[in-house]
Amino acid sequence: MNALKSKTAAHSLTTNTEVVMPNDTNHIGNLFGGKLLQWMDITAAIAAGRHCNRVVVTATINHVSFDNPIKQNSVVTLEAKVSRAFTSSMEVFIDVFVEDRITGEKTKCNEAIFTFVAIDQHGSPLPVPPVIPETDEEKKRYEGALRRRQLSLILGGRMKPDDATELKALFVAD
Amino acid sequence: MNALKSKTAAHSLTTNTEVVMPNDTNHIGNLFGGKLLQWMDITAAIAAGRHCNRVVVTATINHVSFDNPIKQNSVVTLEAKVSRAFTSSMEVFIDVFVEDRITGEKTKCNEAIFTFVAIDQHGSPLPVPPVIPETDEEKKRYEGALRRRQLSLILGGRMKPDDATELKALFVAD
Amino acid sequence: MNALKSKTAAHSLTTNTEVVMPNDTNHIGNLFGGKLLQWMDITAAIAAGRHCNRVVVTATINHVSFDNPIKQNSVVTLEAKVSRAFTSSMEVFIDVFVEDRITGEKTKCNEAIFTFVAIDQHGSPLPVPPVIPETDEEKKRYEGALRRRQLSLILGGRMKPDDATELKALFVAD
Amino acid sequence: MNALKSKTAAHSLTTNTEVVMPNDTNHIGNLFGGKLLQWMDITAAIAAGRHCNRVVVTATINHVSFDNPIKQNSVVTLEAKVSRAFTSSMEVFIDVFVEDRITGEKTKCNEAIFTFVAIDQHGSPLPVPPVIPETDEEKKRYEGALRRRQLSLILGGRMKPDDATELKALFVAD
Amino acid sequence: MNALKSKTAAHSLTTNTEVVMPNDTNHIGNLFGGKLLQWMDITAAIAAGRHCNRVVVTATINHVSFDNPIKQNSVVTLEAKVSRAFTSSMEVFIDVFVEDRITGEKTKCNEAIFTFVAIDQHGSPLPVPPVIPETDEEKKRYEGALRRRQLSLILGGRMKPDDATELKALFVAD
Amino acid sequence: MNALKSKTAAHSLTTNTEVVMPNDTNHIGNLFGGKLLQWMDITAAIAAGRHCNRVVVTATINHVSFDNPIKQNSVVTLEAKVSRAFTSSMEVFIDVFVEDRITGEKTKCNEAIFTFVAIDQHGSPLPVPPVIPETDEEKKRYEGALRRRQLSLILGGRMKPDDATELKALFVAD
Repeated sequence: MNALKSKTAAHSLTTNTEVVMPNDTNHIGNLFGGKLLQWMDITAAIAAGRHCNRVVVTATINHVSFDNPIKQNSVVTLEAKVSRAFTSSMEVFIDVFVEDRITGEKTKCNEAIFTFVAIDQHGSPLPVPPVIPETDEEKKRYEGALRRRQLSLILGGRMKPDDATELKALFVAD
Repeated sequence: MNALKSKTAAHSLTTNTEVVMPNDTNHIGNLFGGKLLQWMDITAAIAAGRHCNRVVVTATINHVSFDNPIKQNSVVTLEAKVSRAFTSSMEVFIDVFVEDRITGEKTKCNEAIFTFVAIDQHGSPLPVPPVIPETDEEKKRYEGALRRRQLSLILGGRMKPDDATELKALFVAD
Repeated sequence: MNALKSKTAAHSLTTNTEVVMPNDTNHIGNLFGGKLLQWMDITAAIAAGRHCNRVVVTATINHVSFDNPIKQNSVVTLEAKVSRAFTSSMEVFIDVFVEDRITGEKTKCNEAIFTFVAIDQHGSPLPVPPVIPETDEEKKRYEGALRRRQLSLILGGRMKPDDATELKALFVAD
Repeated sequence: MNALKSKTAAHSLTTNTEVVMPNDTNHIGNLFGGKLLQWMDITAAIAAGRHCNRVVVTATINHVSFDNPIKQNSVVTLEAKVSRAFTSSMEVFIDVFVEDRITGEKTKCNEAIFTFVAIDQHGSPLPVPPVIPETDEEKKRYEGALRRRQLSLILGGRMKPDDATELKALFVAD
Repeated sequence: MNALKSKTAAHSLTTNTEVVMPNDTNHIGNLFGGKLLQWMDITAAIAAGRHCNRVVVTATINHVSFDNPIKQNSVVTLEAKVSRAFTSSMEVFIDVFVEDRITGEKTKCNEAIFTFVAIDQHGSPLPVPPVIPETDEEKKRYEGALRRRQLSLILGGRMKPDDATELKALFVAD
Repeated sequence: MNALKSKTAAHSLTTNTEVVMPNDTNHIGNLFGGKLLQWMDITAAIAAGRHCNRVVVTATINHVSFDNPIKQNSVVTLEAKVSRAFTSSMEVFIDVFVEDRITGEKTKCNEAIFTFVAIDQHGSPLPVPPVIPETDEEKKRYEGALRRRQLSLILGGRMKPDDATELKALFVAD
């Protein structure tokens, strides 16, 4: 088997369904951000592991916004998929949905982007397979990944803004 | 008492000292990213609460990078301080240090930026006091906060790149 | 909306993906039965809740067998679906799969059957919608549910063996 | 010492006293089934280990019914005893009692039957000592164990109904 | 019913059986003191509650010594009994035993003394029934309780050494 | 480096900031004694480890009193410092403060004294550096440590009251 054969984004889809328990909530009965972050990290790490069949470690968190409070006792579904791979790193999108217990309606309430790196036993990075995006959303996320990667390198002090050609295009009209 | 009187950044300093337990580690014995994120969120939320004396909720995570693996049984210290306030939101920096048990030497291993919002009982935003930066590092973080806020608004789709004047300056030489 | 309109078995499908942590294992490094039972109960309760849109409580556990030990650090997927409904109770099947991290191969390692009851605020039972089985497996499980229900009533001392016509047929050839 | 010398049922008695915490309860303030199952498994595993002085693993759950809801903050007592041994497996009964905090009255609210197997370091089954039932209840449970074992083998697809002579007798009058 | 009728020490006996999990241990694989303290507090609080049928809160910890390390995976049994009652407080002894898994031998490894107070809904102290010691050990512990109470009051700054007549007798020969 | 060079008390200062979660509270919404004990033990163990740069284990708990109930959702700060060292043991004071969320006022609500021992891989005691007290409070605690040590040895049955010269002076006026 060729461990570095391209895989579809759908191949890494990982689903988690959680219930918001009393200990997961703050003073006004809403889910703590820190608990949701932990669920996101676990779900995304399994998705990244499914893509590359290696041990993976969290490298960066690119952006998370907590738009809607999630009430105690809510059913929360997390869906994670690898959006793009770069040498030994994988960008993973996590979509978070909340269900109305009475109507059964599912509402998207959060979106987060984490990056993972595949490593060997000594912690050295290992190459990972490329991602094949299929749906429109997968393609859009695949396209944006390079821009987000440049942003992350700049914020981490490992790239100069001037070299971030993809990102620069956002701000500089021709 | 004037609840909105300016406070120093140092006023909100919150320190947490944790030990990495077996359940906090991955297959190769290093601290899980998700666990560190949870510790960061709790420590930063207490710092934000100390600044504004209100209930606060996590709004966004701007950037986290996990540079150095942290081994099981390590002593980890988290220090959180509010770096700047905007109307009802507060940017909080979290510095993470690991201690060598034998030499006692402390090494900085992570840095993260979270944003919190002060809310009332109905979840509506409340105004928060301004921050007075004192040390050089506090001043530098205070200065950069506006740029990071614009970046966050763009990533969340709530600001056009063209309006992000602070951020644009990074990419566009005069 | 008619809350008691029939729903497909697939409608209630609930998926959970877990990682076996050190604290979930026994002396020889395998997942504790009690931990797996807890995951089964949560996943199955969400499935039952999705079927009836009510608060549900565990009523009986019909049968669980732990055939294959599951190693620490394994990725475990639980899939729960309502197999049949009776007045106010729902039988739920939980299939448990383990993934080989290297090959990505998923192996079914456990199967369990739980029964839940829909209740109101005072704990009184509420009617639930009928189930429409679609696949062959769903149909087979739907068929067997009546037999398992009789067995459960006998074991709980609430039915005489002689009245368990479905079950009796297993032992008494015509 | 002869590790396989018969032991009384009373020898394995294991008692656990727990308090129902907020995180152990569902939306209407009653103990989750899954949490009770976890307590049952731990208590029963210690009882089985005390009988055979070996590492034991959960093999099957024969039947559990949750008759009475248990309220948050209740004091719950679990009592587990090995009821019968077969070559390398042990059937364990778990009786669950709830105490009224004011009157101190103890009420039995659940009964469960688990089966454990004694194993060596490689996971291979090891022989276990026979059980000597002493009280009337211990004798009754000892007698019924063979019937339950046949039922479990049939449900697991490892015995044909026709060969389950003990069980068949329940349904077929002479 | 007279809620303040004397009760035997045996009436409050509370037993807990725990297994030392990976997360309960320190770097060299022994049970953390803090975890054992938590188990002691819960077991002792149930015993105190059984004696007085009231809500109880921990008031003081008189003395705990950790003499023998307890290894991971050990079976630990805690036995708590009220040794003496004073107006609204109860002294509780907790004996801790460890079992050898192979020989089944139980060794006492710790002894602790906690004091609890019975309270009403507003946190005000309520009277509790007297204790009737029966065995020699219960009588010895009952006798020593007054001396320990004086010591605790002195350490808490609420009694002058000169007024501690029971305790003074230890140091001052007639 | 001389591992046994004296260190100031301030060198070992360890701070922990915790939030009282629903699961940490009893029936009337106050922090459980057992949970606070666990936080104390962890914080104090880190302080003792910082003093001696060795693995440490809890040896005795000298005295803890729970004077003021701590409400759910409170911010609790624990500060631990080594007060004195004896050959291989270290006495650690833990001061516990609660913060008013609105006024930000910090109130001391508990004080506890734990003793730790430094050990090698085989569990044998290792020598630890002496403590240099600097502030008035550090000096007062340093002075009292010998008296508390004698008391602990008497309670543990390892010293005769007559040999406890420091302690005896409390009760016997010249």
